[in-house]
Amino acid sequence: MRTIFTAEMSELADDLEAMAKHVKVAIDRANEALLTRNVELAQAVIAEDAELDRLEATVDERCVMLIAQQQPVSIDLRTIITSLRMSASLERMGDLAQHIAEVARRSYPESAVPEHFTQKFTDLAQAASEAAGALVELAKTRDLNTAAEIVEDDDNLDRLHSEIYGELVSDGYDGSHQETLNVALMARYYERFGDHAVSVSRRVVYLVTGDHSHDGGKI
Amino acid sequence: MRTIFTAEMSELADDLEAMAKHVKVAIDRANEALLTRNVELAQAVIAEDAELDRLEATVDERCVMLIAQQQPVSIDLRTIITSLRMSASLERMGDLAQHIAEVARRSYPESAVPEHFTQKFTDLAQAASEAAGALVELAKTRDLNTAAEIVEDDDNLDRLHSEIYGELVSDGYDGSHQETLNVALMARYYERFGDHAVSVSRRVVYLVTGDHSHDGGKI
Repeated sequence: MRTIFTAEMSELADDLEAMAKHVKVAIDRANEALLTRNVELAQAVIAEDAELDRLEATVDERCVMLIAQQQPVSIDLRTIITSLRMSASLERMGDLAQHIAEVARRSYPESAVPEHFTQKFTDLAQAASEAAGALVELAKTRDLNTAAEIVEDDDNLDRLHSEIYGELVSDGYDGSHQETLNVALMARYYERFGDHAVSVSRRVVYLVTGDHSHDGGKI
Repeated sequence: MRTIFTAEMSELADDLEAMAKHVKVAIDRANEALLTRNVELAQAVIAEDAELDRLEATVDERCVMLIAQQQPVSIDLRTIITSLRMSASLERMGDLAQHIAEVARRSYPESAVPEHFTQKFTDLAQAASEAAGALVELAKTRDLNTAAEIVEDDDNLDRLHSEIYGELVSDGYDGSHQETLNVALMARYYERFGDHAVSVSRRVVYLVTGDHSHDGGKI
Protein backbone atom coordinates (compact mmCIF):
# COMPACT_ATOMS: atom_id res chain seq x y z
CA MET A 1 0.00 0.00 0.00
CA ARG A 2 2.73 2.43 1.03
CA THR A 3 4.66 1.79 -2.19
CA ILE A 4 1.64 2.54 -4.33
CA PHE A 5 1.13 5.72 -2.33
CA THR A 6 4.72 6.85 -2.85
CA ALA A 7 4.40 6.16 -6.58
CA GLU A 8 1.16 8.14 -6.72
CA MET A 9 2.71 11.09 -4.87
CA SER A 10 5.59 11.04 -7.32
CA GLU A 11 3.18 11.04 -10.27
CA LEU A 12 1.39 14.00 -8.71
CA ALA A 13 4.69 15.92 -8.66
CA ASP A 14 5.27 14.92 -12.30
CA ASP A 15 1.82 16.16 -13.30
CA LEU A 16 2.45 19.54 -11.70
CA GLU A 17 5.81 19.77 -13.44
CA ALA A 18 4.08 18.93 -16.73
CA MET A 19 1.56 21.71 -16.05
CA ALA A 20 4.36 24.21 -15.38
CA LYS A 21 6.09 23.17 -18.62
CA HIS A 22 2.85 23.58 -20.54
CA VAL A 23 2.43 27.09 -19.12
CA LYS A 24 6.00 27.97 -20.13
CA VAL A 25 5.40 26.84 -23.73
CA ALA A 26 2.04 28.66 -23.82
CA ILE A 27 3.42 32.00 -22.60
CA ASP A 28 6.49 31.79 -24.88
CA ARG A 29 4.28 31.14 -27.90
CA ALA A 30 1.78 33.82 -26.89
CA ASN A 31 4.69 36.28 -26.52
CA GLU A 32 6.07 35.40 -29.94
CA ALA A 33 2.61 35.48 -31.55
CA LEU A 34 2.08 38.93 -30.07
CA LEU A 35 5.45 40.46 -30.86
CA THR A 36 5.82 38.99 -34.38
CA ARG A 37 2.14 39.04 -35.48
CA ASN A 38 2.15 35.26 -35.94
CA VAL A 39 -1.51 34.34 -36.12
CA GLU A 40 -0.91 30.58 -36.54
CA LEU A 41 1.06 30.54 -33.31
CA ALA A 42 -1.69 32.51 -31.55
CA GLN A 43 -4.16 29.94 -32.82
CA ALA A 44 -1.98 27.11 -31.47
CA VAL A 45 -1.85 28.64 -27.99
CA ILE A 46 -5.63 28.95 -27.96
CA ALA A 47 -6.18 25.38 -29.20
CA GLU A 48 -3.69 23.82 -26.79
CA ASP A 49 -5.14 25.33 -23.65
CA ALA A 50 -7.58 22.41 -23.51
CA GLU A 51 -4.61 20.14 -22.76
CA LEU A 52 -3.76 22.19 -19.67
CA ASP A 53 -7.38 21.95 -18.52
CA ARG A 54 -7.13 18.17 -18.95
CA LEU A 55 -3.92 18.09 -16.89
CA GLU A 56 -5.61 20.11 -14.14
CA ALA A 57 -8.51 17.64 -14.04
CA THR A 58 -6.00 14.76 -13.78
CA VAL A 59 -4.21 16.41 -10.86
CA ASP A 60 -7.50 17.14 -9.09
CA GLU A 61 -8.76 13.60 -9.55
CA ARG A 62 -5.49 12.13 -8.33
CA CYS A 63 -5.57 14.34 -5.22
CA VAL A 64 -9.11 13.35 -4.30
CA MET A 65 -8.38 9.65 -4.89
CA LEU A 66 -5.22 9.86 -2.80
CA ILE A 67 -7.04 11.44 0.14
CA ALA A 68 -9.98 9.03 -0.11
CA GLN A 69 -8.03 5.82 -0.50
CA GLN A 70 -4.88 6.50 1.48
CA GLN A 71 -6.10 8.80 4.24
CA PRO A 72 -2.78 10.59 4.37
CA VAL A 73 -1.73 12.72 7.30
CA SER A 74 0.75 15.47 8.03
CA ILE A 75 3.19 16.27 5.26
CA ASP A 76 1.51 14.07 2.65
CA LEU A 77 -1.87 15.66 3.25
CA ARG A 78 -0.28 19.09 3.12
CA THR A 79 1.33 18.22 -0.21
CA ILE A 80 -1.94 17.01 -1.69
CA ILE A 81 -4.00 20.02 -0.63
CA THR A 82 -1.28 22.39 -1.79
CA SER A 83 -1.13 20.55 -5.13
CA LEU A 84 -4.83 21.17 -5.62
CA ARG A 85 -4.23 24.90 -5.20
CA MET A 86 -1.18 24.91 -7.46
CA SER A 87 -3.02 23.18 -10.29
CA ALA A 88 -5.73 25.86 -10.15
CA SER A 89 -3.15 28.67 -10.41
CA LEU A 90 -1.25 26.97 -13.25
CA GLU A 91 -4.48 26.42 -15.15
CA ARG A 92 -5.28 30.12 -14.73
CA MET A 93 -1.80 31.09 -16.01
CA GLY A 94 -2.59 29.08 -19.13
CA ASP A 95 -5.86 30.99 -19.52
CA LEU A 96 -3.97 34.28 -19.34
CA ALA A 97 -1.50 33.16 -22.03
CA GLN A 98 -4.55 32.19 -24.08
CA HIS A 99 -6.13 35.64 -23.54
CA ILE A 100 -2.92 37.32 -24.78
CA ALA A 101 -2.98 35.08 -27.86
CA GLU A 102 -6.64 35.97 -28.42
CA VAL A 103 -5.86 39.70 -28.49
CA ALA A 104 -3.00 39.00 -30.94
CA ARG A 105 -5.33 36.95 -33.16
CA ARG A 106 -8.13 39.51 -33.03
CA SER A 107 -5.77 42.31 -34.13
CA TYR A 108 -4.23 40.38 -37.00
CA PRO A 109 -2.98 41.41 -39.58
CA GLU A 110 -2.28 44.51 -37.48
CA SER A 111 -0.09 44.18 -34.42
CA ALA A 112 -1.99 44.27 -31.10
CA VAL A 113 0.98 46.22 -29.70
CA PRO A 114 1.22 49.84 -30.90
CA GLU A 115 4.78 50.64 -31.98
CA HIS A 116 5.22 53.05 -29.10
CA PHE A 117 4.70 50.19 -26.62
CA THR A 118 6.93 47.61 -28.30
CA GLN A 119 9.71 47.88 -25.75
CA LYS A 120 7.37 47.65 -22.76
CA PHE A 121 5.68 44.54 -24.13
CA THR A 122 9.03 43.00 -25.02
CA ASP A 123 9.96 43.50 -21.37
CA LEU A 124 6.62 42.12 -20.12
CA ALA A 125 7.05 39.08 -22.37
CA GLN A 126 10.58 38.56 -21.08
CA ALA A 127 9.61 38.82 -17.39
CA ALA A 128 6.61 36.50 -17.85
CA SER A 129 8.73 33.94 -19.71
CA GLU A 130 11.38 34.06 -16.98
CA ALA A 131 8.77 33.61 -14.26
CA ALA A 132 7.31 30.59 -16.08
CA GLY A 133 10.79 29.14 -16.63
CA ALA A 134 11.60 29.59 -12.96
CA LEU A 135 8.36 27.79 -12.05
CA VAL A 136 9.42 24.77 -14.14
CA GLU A 137 12.80 24.84 -12.40
CA LEU A 138 11.14 25.17 -9.00
CA ALA A 139 8.81 22.24 -9.73
CA LYS A 140 11.86 20.12 -10.62
CA THR A 141 14.38 21.14 -8.01
CA ARG A 142 12.44 22.80 -5.18
CA ASP A 143 15.39 25.15 -4.90
CA LEU A 144 14.09 28.09 -2.89
CA ASN A 145 16.38 30.61 -4.59
CA THR A 146 14.22 30.12 -7.65
CA ALA A 147 11.21 31.34 -5.66
CA ALA A 148 13.03 34.63 -5.00
CA GLU A 149 13.62 35.04 -8.75
CA ILE A 150 9.91 34.67 -9.39
CA VAL A 151 9.13 37.44 -6.91
CA GLU A 152 11.61 39.64 -8.78
CA ASP A 153 9.99 38.83 -12.16
CA ASP A 154 6.61 39.65 -10.63
CA ASP A 155 7.95 42.99 -9.36
CA ASN A 156 9.06 43.75 -12.92
CA LEU A 157 5.65 42.82 -14.30
CA ASP A 158 3.94 45.06 -11.73
CA ARG A 159 6.25 47.96 -12.51
CA LEU A 160 5.78 47.63 -16.29
CA HIS A 161 2.00 47.30 -15.87
CA SER A 162 1.92 50.44 -13.79
CA GLU A 163 4.20 52.38 -16.19
CA ILE A 164 2.01 51.39 -19.14
CA TYR A 165 -1.16 52.53 -17.37
CA GLY A 166 0.59 55.81 -16.55
CA GLU A 167 1.41 56.31 -20.24
CA LEU A 168 -2.12 55.49 -21.36
CA VAL A 169 -3.52 58.38 -19.34
CA SER A 170 -0.66 60.83 -19.88
CA ASP A 171 -1.21 64.03 -21.87
CA GLY A 172 1.12 63.08 -24.71
CA TYR A 173 -0.56 59.76 -25.50
CA ASP A 174 -2.73 59.77 -28.63
CA GLY A 175 -3.49 56.12 -29.45
CA SER A 176 -6.86 54.97 -30.75
CA HIS A 177 -9.44 53.55 -28.37
CA GLN A 178 -8.86 50.06 -29.77
CA GLU A 179 -5.15 50.41 -29.04
CA THR A 180 -5.82 51.67 -25.53
CA LEU A 181 -8.13 48.74 -24.90
CA ASN A 182 -5.64 46.16 -26.22
CA VAL A 183 -2.72 47.62 -24.31
CA ALA A 184 -4.67 47.95 -21.04
CA LEU A 185 -6.04 44.41 -21.18
CA MET A 186 -2.80 42.74 -22.16
CA ALA A 187 -0.78 44.62 -19.54
CA ARG A 188 -3.29 43.38 -16.99
CA TYR A 189 -3.03 39.76 -18.25
CA TYR A 190 0.74 39.86 -17.81
CA GLU A 191 0.41 41.40 -14.37
CA ARG A 192 -2.05 38.69 -13.25
CA PHE A 193 0.24 36.03 -14.75
CA GLY A 194 2.97 37.23 -12.38
CA ASP A 195 0.60 37.18 -9.39
CA HIS A 196 -0.26 33.53 -10.04
CA ALA A 197 3.41 32.61 -10.54
CA VAL A 198 4.19 34.08 -7.11
CA SER A 199 1.23 32.24 -5.62
CA VAL A 200 2.48 28.90 -6.98
CA SER A 201 6.04 29.56 -5.82
CA ARG A 202 4.86 30.44 -2.31
CA ARG A 203 3.03 27.16 -2.08
CA VAL A 204 6.20 25.32 -3.03
CA VAL A 205 8.09 27.26 -0.35
CA TYR A 206 5.39 26.28 2.12
CA LEU A 207 5.74 22.62 1.14
CA VAL A 208 9.51 22.69 1.51
CA THR A 209 9.76 24.76 4.68
CA GLY A 210 6.34 24.35 6.32
CA ASP A 211 6.41 28.11 6.73
CA HIS A 212 3.45 29.88 5.21
CA SER A 213 4.23 33.34 6.48
CA HIS A 214 5.20 34.07 2.85
CA ASP A 215 1.70 33.23 1.72
CA GLY A 216 -0.48 35.50 3.81
CA GLY A 217 -1.20 32.54 6.06
CA LYS A 218 -2.89 30.61 3.28
CA ILE A 219 -2.05 27.14 2.15
CA MET B 1 -16.32 11.66 17.39
CA ARG B 2 -19.04 11.57 14.76
CA THR B 3 -20.97 14.32 16.54
CA ILE B 4 -17.98 16.64 16.59
CA PHE B 5 -17.49 15.92 12.91
CA THR B 6 -21.11 16.76 12.08
CA ALA B 7 -20.83 19.98 14.06
CA GLU B 8 -17.62 20.89 12.23
CA MET B 9 -19.20 20.20 8.85
CA SER B 10 -22.11 22.42 9.79
CA GLU B 11 -19.76 25.22 10.81
CA LEU B 12 -17.99 24.85 7.48
CA ALA B 13 -21.32 25.44 5.71
CA ASP B 14 -21.94 28.46 7.97
CA ASP B 15 -18.53 29.91 7.13
CA LEU B 16 -19.21 29.61 3.40
CA GLU B 17 -22.59 31.26 3.85
CA ALA B 18 -20.89 34.06 5.80
CA MET B 19 -18.41 34.49 2.94
CA ALA B 20 -21.26 34.70 0.39
CA LYS B 21 -23.01 37.31 2.55
CA HIS B 22 -19.80 39.32 2.82
CA VAL B 23 -19.43 39.26 -0.97
CA LYS B 24 -23.03 40.44 -1.39
CA VAL B 25 -22.45 43.40 0.95
CA ALA B 26 -19.13 44.22 -0.75
CA ILE B 27 -20.56 44.26 -4.29
CA ASP B 28 -23.66 46.26 -3.23
CA ARG B 29 -21.49 48.86 -1.56
CA ALA B 30 -19.02 48.94 -4.46
CA ASN B 31 -21.95 49.43 -6.85
CA GLU B 32 -23.36 52.27 -4.80
CA ALA B 33 -19.94 53.87 -4.32
CA LEU B 34 -19.44 53.74 -8.08
CA LEU B 35 -22.86 54.98 -9.17
CA THR B 36 -23.25 57.72 -6.53
CA ARG B 37 -19.60 58.82 -6.23
CA ASN B 38 -19.54 57.89 -2.55
CA VAL B 39 -15.86 57.81 -1.66
CA GLU B 40 -16.39 56.83 2.00
CA LEU B 41 -18.32 53.76 0.89
CA ALA B 42 -15.58 52.90 -1.61
CA GLN B 43 -13.08 53.20 1.22
CA ALA B 44 -15.18 50.88 3.41
CA VAL B 45 -15.29 48.17 0.71
CA ILE B 46 -11.51 48.34 0.37
CA ALA B 47 -10.93 48.22 4.13
CA GLU B 48 -13.35 45.36 4.77
CA ASP B 49 -11.88 43.01 2.20
CA ALA B 50 -9.40 41.86 4.86
CA GLU B 51 -12.31 40.29 6.74
CA LEU B 52 -13.15 38.13 3.72
CA ASP B 53 -9.52 37.04 3.49
CA ARG B 54 -9.71 36.07 7.16
CA LEU B 55 -12.87 34.06 6.53
CA GLU B 56 -11.19 32.26 3.65
CA ALA B 57 -8.24 31.34 5.89
CA THR B 58 -10.70 30.00 8.50
CA VAL B 59 -12.47 27.84 5.93
CA ASP B 60 -9.20 26.51 4.58
CA GLU B 61 -7.87 25.69 8.02
CA ARG B 62 -11.08 23.95 9.00
CA CYS B 63 -10.99 21.86 5.81
CA VAL B 64 -7.43 20.72 6.36
CA MET B 65 -8.09 19.92 10.03
CA LEU B 66 -11.22 17.97 9.13
CA ILE B 67 -9.39 15.84 6.59
CA ALA B 68 -6.42 15.25 8.88
CA GLN B 69 -8.31 14.42 12.03
CA GLN B 70 -11.45 12.76 10.73
CA GLN B 71 -10.22 11.05 7.59
CA PRO B 72 -13.58 11.52 5.92
CA VAL B 73 -14.62 9.50 2.89
CA SER B 74 -17.14 9.74 0.10
CA ILE B 75 -19.65 12.59 0.37
CA ASP B 76 -17.95 14.28 3.34
CA LEU B 77 -14.60 14.36 1.60
CA ARG B 78 -16.28 15.68 -1.54
CA THR B 79 -17.89 18.45 0.50
CA ILE B 80 -14.62 19.45 2.11
CA ILE B 81 -12.61 19.58 -1.11
CA THR B 82 -15.41 21.46 -2.87
CA SER B 83 -15.56 23.92 0.05
CA LEU B 84 -11.86 24.67 -0.40
CA ARG B 85 -12.53 25.59 -4.02
CA MET B 86 -15.60 27.65 -3.18
CA SER B 87 -13.77 29.71 -0.57
CA ALA B 88 -11.11 30.61 -3.16
CA SER B 89 -13.76 31.81 -5.65
CA LEU B 90 -15.66 33.80 -3.01
CA GLU B 91 -12.45 35.45 -1.87
CA ARG B 92 -11.71 36.40 -5.48
CA MET B 93 -15.22 37.87 -5.88
CA GLY B 94 -14.46 40.09 -2.89
CA ASP B 95 -11.21 41.19 -4.57
CA LEU B 96 -13.15 42.17 -7.69
CA ALA B 97 -15.65 44.25 -5.64
CA GLN B 98 -12.61 45.87 -4.04
CA HIS B 99 -11.10 46.63 -7.47
CA ILE B 100 -14.34 48.32 -8.55
CA ALA B 101 -14.28 50.40 -5.35
CA GLU B 102 -10.64 51.31 -6.03
CA VAL B 103 -11.51 52.71 -9.47
CA ALA B 104 -14.38 54.69 -7.89
CA ARG B 105 -12.05 56.07 -5.22
CA ARG B 106 -9.29 56.92 -7.71
CA SER B 107 -11.72 58.89 -9.89
CA TYR B 108 -13.27 60.86 -7.01
CA PRO B 109 -14.57 63.60 -7.05
CA GLU B 110 -15.27 62.76 -10.70
CA SER B 111 -17.43 59.73 -11.45
CA ALA B 112 -15.50 56.71 -12.75
CA VAL B 113 -18.48 56.04 -15.03
CA PRO B 114 -18.79 58.47 -17.98
CA GLU B 115 -22.38 59.68 -18.31
CA HIS B 116 -22.84 57.85 -21.57
CA PHE B 117 -22.22 54.53 -19.80
CA THR B 118 -24.42 55.12 -16.74
CA GLN B 119 -27.19 52.78 -17.89
CA LYS B 120 -24.79 49.96 -18.77
CA PHE B 121 -23.07 50.16 -15.40
CA THR B 122 -26.40 50.36 -13.60
CA ASP B 123 -27.29 47.12 -15.39
CA LEU B 124 -23.90 45.53 -14.59
CA ALA B 125 -24.32 46.52 -10.93
CA GLN B 126 -27.83 45.05 -10.87
CA ALA B 127 -26.79 41.73 -12.44
CA ALA B 128 -23.76 41.37 -10.15
CA SER B 129 -25.86 42.15 -7.08
CA GLU B 130 -28.47 39.59 -8.14
CA ALA B 131 -25.82 36.94 -8.73
CA ALA B 132 -24.33 37.59 -5.27
CA GLY B 133 -27.80 37.51 -3.67
CA ALA B 134 -28.55 34.23 -5.41
CA LEU B 135 -25.26 32.80 -4.08
CA VAL B 136 -26.29 33.65 -0.50
CA GLU B 137 -29.65 31.98 -1.16
CA LEU B 138 -27.95 28.96 -2.70
CA ALA B 139 -25.58 28.62 0.26
CA LYS B 140 -28.60 28.64 2.61
CA THR B 141 -31.12 26.53 0.74
CA ARG B 142 -29.16 24.53 -1.84
CA ASP B 143 -32.15 25.07 -4.09
CA LEU B 144 -30.89 24.26 -7.57
CA ASN B 145 -33.24 26.69 -9.29
CA THR B 146 -31.10 29.42 -7.76
CA ALA B 147 -28.09 28.07 -9.67
CA ALA B 148 -29.98 28.59 -12.94
CA GLU B 149 -30.63 32.23 -11.97
CA ILE B 150 -26.90 32.76 -11.44
CA VAL B 151 -26.15 31.46 -14.94
CA GLU B 152 -28.69 33.95 -16.27
CA ASP B 153 -27.10 36.83 -14.33
CA ASP B 154 -23.72 35.79 -15.69
CA ASP B 155 -25.10 35.77 -19.25
CA ASN B 156 -26.28 39.33 -18.67
CA LEU B 157 -22.87 40.36 -17.34
CA ASP B 158 -21.16 38.79 -20.37
CA ARG B 159 -23.54 40.52 -22.77
CA LEU B 160 -23.11 43.93 -21.10
CA HIS B 161 -19.31 43.51 -21.00
CA SER B 162 -19.27 42.69 -24.68
CA GLU B 163 -21.62 45.58 -25.59
CA ILE B 164 -19.45 48.02 -23.64
CA TYR B 165 -16.27 46.85 -25.38
CA GLY B 166 -18.09 47.23 -28.70
CA GLU B 167 -18.96 50.83 -27.84
CA LEU B 168 -15.43 51.64 -26.70
CA VAL B 169 -14.06 50.82 -30.15
CA SER B 170 -16.98 52.17 -32.21
CA ASP B 171 -16.49 55.18 -34.50
CA GLY B 172 -18.83 57.46 -32.56
CA TYR B 173 -17.11 57.01 -29.20
CA ASP B 174 -14.98 59.97 -28.10
CA GLY B 175 -14.17 59.44 -24.43
CA SER B 176 -10.80 60.29 -22.91
CA HIS B 177 -8.16 57.63 -22.46
CA GLN B 178 -8.70 57.68 -18.71
CA GLU B 179 -12.41 57.03 -19.26
CA THR B 180 -11.71 54.23 -21.70
CA LEU B 181 -9.35 52.63 -19.22
CA ASN B 182 -11.80 52.90 -16.31
CA VAL B 183 -14.72 51.58 -18.32
CA ALA B 184 -12.75 48.69 -19.82
CA LEU B 185 -11.30 47.57 -16.50
CA MET B 186 -14.53 47.82 -14.53
CA ALA B 187 -16.54 46.02 -17.21
CA ARG B 188 -14.00 43.24 -17.01
CA TYR B 189 -14.18 43.10 -13.19
CA TYR B 190 -17.96 42.65 -13.38
CA GLU B 191 -17.61 40.00 -16.06
CA ARG B 192 -15.09 38.03 -13.97
CA PHE B 193 -17.32 38.44 -10.91
CA GLY B 194 -20.06 36.61 -12.85
CA ASP B 195 -17.65 33.83 -13.89
CA HIS B 196 -16.73 33.15 -10.28
CA ALA B 197 -20.39 33.20 -9.20
CA VAL B 198 -21.15 30.52 -11.79
CA SER B 199 -18.13 28.52 -10.65
CA VAL B 200 -19.34 28.57 -7.01
CA SER B 201 -22.89 27.66 -8.00
CA ARG B 202 -21.69 24.73 -10.11
CA ARG B 203 -19.81 23.37 -7.15
CA VAL B 204 -22.95 23.54 -5.05
CA VAL B 205 -24.84 21.70 -7.79
CA TYR B 206 -22.11 19.10 -7.79
CA LEU B 207 -22.39 18.68 -4.02
CA VAL B 208 -26.15 18.30 -4.16
CA THR B 209 -26.42 16.08 -7.21
CA GLY B 210 -22.99 14.45 -7.46
CA ASP B 211 -23.15 15.43 -11.12
CA HIS B 212 -20.24 17.51 -12.26
CA SER B 213 -21.08 17.56 -15.94
CA HIS B 214 -22.04 21.21 -15.28
CA ASP B 215 -18.55 21.99 -14.10
CA GLY B 216 -16.40 20.92 -17.03
CA GLY B 217 -15.61 17.75 -15.11
CA LYS B 218 -13.88 19.66 -12.35
CA ILE B 219 -14.61 19.43 -8.67
